[in-house]
Amino acid sequence: MKYPNGLKKEYVNIKSHSNRGMNLENDLNDTNNYYLNNDIAIIYKKPTPITINKVDYKSRKDVVIKEAHFKTPSTTDYNGIYKGKYIDFEAKETKSETSFPINNIHKHQIDHLIKIYSHGGIGFIIVRFTKLNKTYLLFIEDLIRFLNNNKRVSIPINYFDKYAYLVKEGINPRLDYLKILDKKGV
Amino acid sequence: MKYPNGLKKEYVNIKSHSNRGMNLENDLNDTNNYYLNNDIAIIYKKPTPITINKVDYKSRKDVVIKEAHFKTPSTTDYNGIYKGKYIDFEAKETKSETSFPINNIHKHQIDHLIKIYSHGGIGFIIVRFTKLNKTYLLFIEDLIRFLNNNKRVSIPINYFDKYAYLVKEGINPRLDYLKILDKKGV
Repeated sequence: MKYPNGLKKEYVNIKSHSNRGMNLENDLNDTNNYYLNNDIAIIYKKPTPITINKVDYKSRKDVVIKEAHFKTPSTTDYNGIYKGKYIDFEAKETKSETSFPINNIHKHQIDHLIKIYSHGGIGFIIVRFTKLNKTYLLFIEDLIRFLNNNKRVSIPINYFDKYAYLVKEGINPRLDYLKILDKKGV
Repeated sequence: MKYPNGLKKEYVNIKSHSNRGMNLENDLNDTNNYYLNNDIAIIYKKPTPITINKVDYKSRKDVVIKEAHFKTPSTTDYNGIYKGKYIDFEAKETKSETSFPINNIHKHQIDHLIKIYSHGGIGFIIVRFTKLNKTYLLFIEDLIRFLNNNKRVSIPINYFDKYAYLVKEGINPRLDYLKILDKKGV
């Protein structure tokens, strides 16, 4: 990896380390912006669902939420349209180097992706193994196959190597996951 | 209209009056639940987007948002999939009896619907004239035609009568707007 001129290696490391938790989400947001700005696809991350308990309503333009709680999401985080097709996915990071714990994704989110698939949409999960620096795209049909044939609570990385697609990291777009849909011909 | 046995007319009136502001949203949520439970379509209202400023993090399970603000939404409120097609719409009520003020919908929401249309999705707005008890579905292509040919800041109701579709109210589903997509053959 090439560091920008004049930037100390230490600084780069600290920065990349502190960003790690948000990396995948940031990469996907950047990528979706790239898709949007280049008129390739229209894919957004949904807002985080909350329950609002108290609101301070000072004026029409000055409304402050004073108490709210996070809600369990009913659906996945990302959806949109690409080449006329409905796209829906969830993205997760794991620190594990060997497997992805399935309970990182809510059961009803998996059920949601299965429904999307049965209605003719394209559903998948994007999983990043942060310590391995690898990001995979696993289509819902391949996730279902795993769930149907295994009692295991986590998907071993060799299942990803066999059935998922490695998403290449780049500059712009950062994470060209739609290329994989083209490759698969969906 | 038939009132449930033993329920005073006054009570019914008060209730229906106080619900008026939320009526369309409630009707659409009920309808989308009906579609979901009957495996007809998967359409959700997106959560309201907010910016979180302060969070009280007591424990992993007890996180309270202490200060947040409403953000302008980047997209429309509703999207999903129906018969394999990407669906996207915005819903608004107006108290006017003669026209729908276009600035009730953010310009970037209209731009979003136009992009959806150009990518092969189905975009529309649902407008309820609360005082007339009429709910219309206007496809984005018919909204664009109006915007291209008019300098007016509101769409007269006769434009809706001519180019939009009246959505019938029922018991279950409350507002069967997908029937109009079938009728139009989209």
